[in-house]
Amino acid sequence: MNPPRGPVTLLTDFGTRDGWVGVMKGSVASLAPSVPLHDVAHDLPQGDIAGAARALGRYWDRFPPGTVHLVVVDPGVGTERRPAALEAAGRFLVAPDNGVGTPMLAAPGSRAVILENPAFLGAGRSATFHGRDIFAPAAGHLARGVPLDELGPPLAGPVRLEPPLPSGGPGGARGTVVSVDRFGNLATNLPGEWAPPGMRIRVGSRWIPRGTTYGDVERGALLAVVNSDGMLEVAVRDGSATQVLGVGEGAPVEVVSGG
Amino acid sequence: MNPPRGPVTLLTDFGTRDGWVGVMKGSVASLAPSVPLHDVAHDLPQGDIAGAARALGRYWDRFPPGTVHLVVVDPGVGTERRPAALEAAGRFLVAPDNGVGTPMLAAPGSRAVILENPAFLGAGRSATFHGRDIFAPAAGHLARGVPLDELGPPLAGPVRLEPPLPSGGPGGARGTVVSVDRFGNLATNLPGEWAPPGMRIRVGSRWIPRGTTYGDVERGALLAVVNSDGMLEVAVRDGSATQVLGVGEGAPVEVVSGG
Amino acid sequence: MNPPRGPVTLLTDFGTRDGWVGVMKGSVASLAPSVPLHDVAHDLPQGDIAGAARALGRYWDRFPPGTVHLVVVDPGVGTERRPAALEAAGRFLVAPDNGVGTPMLAAPGSRAVILENPAFLGAGRSATFHGRDIFAPAAGHLARGVPLDELGPPLAGPVRLEPPLPSGGPGGARGTVVSVDRFGNLATNLPGEWAPPGMRIRVGSRWIPRGTTYGDVERGALLAVVNSDGMLEVAVRDGSATQVLGVGEGAPVEVVSGG
Repeated sequence: MNPPRGPVTLLTDFGTRDGWVGVMKGSVASLAPSVPLHDVAHDLPQGDIAGAARALGRYWDRFPPGTVHLVVVDPGVGTERRPAALEAAGRFLVAPDNGVGTPMLAAPGSRAVILENPAFLGAGRSATFHGRDIFAPAAGHLARGVPLDELGPPLAGPVRLEPPLPSGGPGGARGTVVSVDRFGNLATNLPGEWAPPGMRIRVGSRWIPRGTTYGDVERGALLAVVNSDGMLEVAVRDGSATQVLGVGEGAPVEVVSGG
Repeated sequence: MNPPRGPVTLLTDFGTRDGWVGVMKGSVASLAPSVPLHDVAHDLPQGDIAGAARALGRYWDRFPPGTVHLVVVDPGVGTERRPAALEAAGRFLVAPDNGVGTPMLAAPGSRAVILENPAFLGAGRSATFHGRDIFAPAAGHLARGVPLDELGPPLAGPVRLEPPLPSGGPGGARGTVVSVDRFGNLATNLPGEWAPPGMRIRVGSRWIPRGTTYGDVERGALLAVVNSDGMLEVAVRDGSATQVLGVGEGAPVEVVSGG
Repeated sequence: MNPPRGPVTLLTDFGTRDGWVGVMKGSVASLAPSVPLHDVAHDLPQGDIAGAARALGRYWDRFPPGTVHLVVVDPGVGTERRPAALEAAGRFLVAPDNGVGTPMLAAPGSRAVILENPAFLGAGRSATFHGRDIFAPAAGHLARGVPLDELGPPLAGPVRLEPPLPSGGPGGARGTVVSVDRFGNLATNLPGEWAPPGMRIRVGSRWIPRGTTYGDVERGALLAVVNSDGMLEVAVRDGSATQVLGVGEGAPVEVVSGG
């Protein structure tokens, strides 16, 4: 067995009040007592696989090698979807094979296994809570140093999400709003370099000025900036773009040469 | 003093934004700096003693021996309810004596004390925040290895919740919905073995098919399964049974021989 | 370099579901892997600097010396507000210089620096997410023992909040509601000792009896107590004072000699 790894991070759509997150933490802590546990979120919308993948894409490689990311957003529990673990760039993921792992699968050299070695699963097996019965034990075993390959056979053809792609390029492009954050900012699938200063951005019938920071405009005014993911984002300084524009996920966004 | 224990888990109805959970964590961390702290939940409905007990019942023995569970759901702060600590199967609980500890009190050999040794309480004593002044210091002292008996004298007759019991048995039974989880699933007090496949389940005027996993029915369809607590649960695949059926906690559920 | 410090606490208005808190935790964990991370809250109202300062004032010195408090409530990101770190009574704060640090700045001997030494900042620098690019790396470096002074030059004239002050004294006073907690309790800026038992408390046209603990009145009844911050608070036993009285933050509260 390898030296202990860790920490273990947790991302679920369970909410916290029912105690299920506590159950999973207890399971990991029993197997790997000295490994830190870090919550990412437990308030994902129910079954929001795309949202889980988007969040994971932001944080997975910010943690040090050896980290085990546990992601349980599992609307397919009780169907044929496979439980999986994977390794990418020295970090691990334990999750249902339903697309949540897409950002880690995209890393060079990633490899995945099916969680089916009974030595590393929980004692029971309910029909409804694989977070407790399969995923948390697997994360605990990985955290205490069990090699990935011992958890089960290779997973062929892991499920990958195919998010909507923008069209065009730096001279003019069309994309969509892919997420709305807590502040009402509209993140798009348009790379920031496709909308350099001087281009004009349109959402519906509104033209949005291209800015550099929120401080470029007055409070309450719209602007488009490159967000911390490197993508074009439509925002309202100290306000909510989704409210001001009345649009959300899936709304078209256009970038046009300045006139 | 015994060797350090830990981790410490936290379950409250405080919410997080006022900083009170931070205050309790600081208190524990000051007494037992190397002990991990694990949040279970802080968003329990205000004063929901039964919900706290139900959650604790799920996670308390999933954590390793030596764990200190800190539960502060305390609508009786400022009344005569006693502050308590108990030990069961090697785990500890620090909580008001108001019934939240029921699942640990049910374990063989559990024993409880009243928190009244001033050496292990906080410096001040407010009328409204015993989480800070009594419970968190006690948890910190337990986590650093103080024996249970040093915290105070034995607690005679600890408060136990008496949840509603079902009637009947495997040949036909009546029970109630005891909780509704975040997904709208209706957990009942009917043991799964009282409703084997072939039995029919009724809620109000609706007959619910007995399934094995969510995948047994179409999306949006009702089914009854044995949940991860081993109890009969009424669910809607990828939907909310509480919304579809229009019922919640306390609703009667009947199990009848298949016809 | 000093010996490692820690733990690191986190208080933000980011919410958790987008993964930004995960990003910050990963950044700290990469720099200081063995340092515990403790969440305080991530659900502060957007841009609520006063609320962040109020929470920090409650917990900052409950944690042991060496703790690094990371507070990112940053409506001014992208404006000229300065990123800062400070030390007070052996604890550290990393936060925007927008007033959130007021309670620690009030401690004797506190001193602050501007975060501008590129050796201790993140690799990139976005216009919108200094939590990732500036604050989390600085917290990680402090936690691994970097002296405060190496992070940047002294910060002259840090921003301090000036909360509303009450008028009067123990013989009669006027103040205001400064916050409403999750339970609907109305915390005022009136010191508890200005409203000793025997005084009468008025909110709007309602007279509120001065009690000692919630248990002094019937369920559903109003009372005024000294809260765990040592301030006068108006509450309803097992209920919500903000709902019963129909008032919130900013409402005037009067203390008058008993008649």
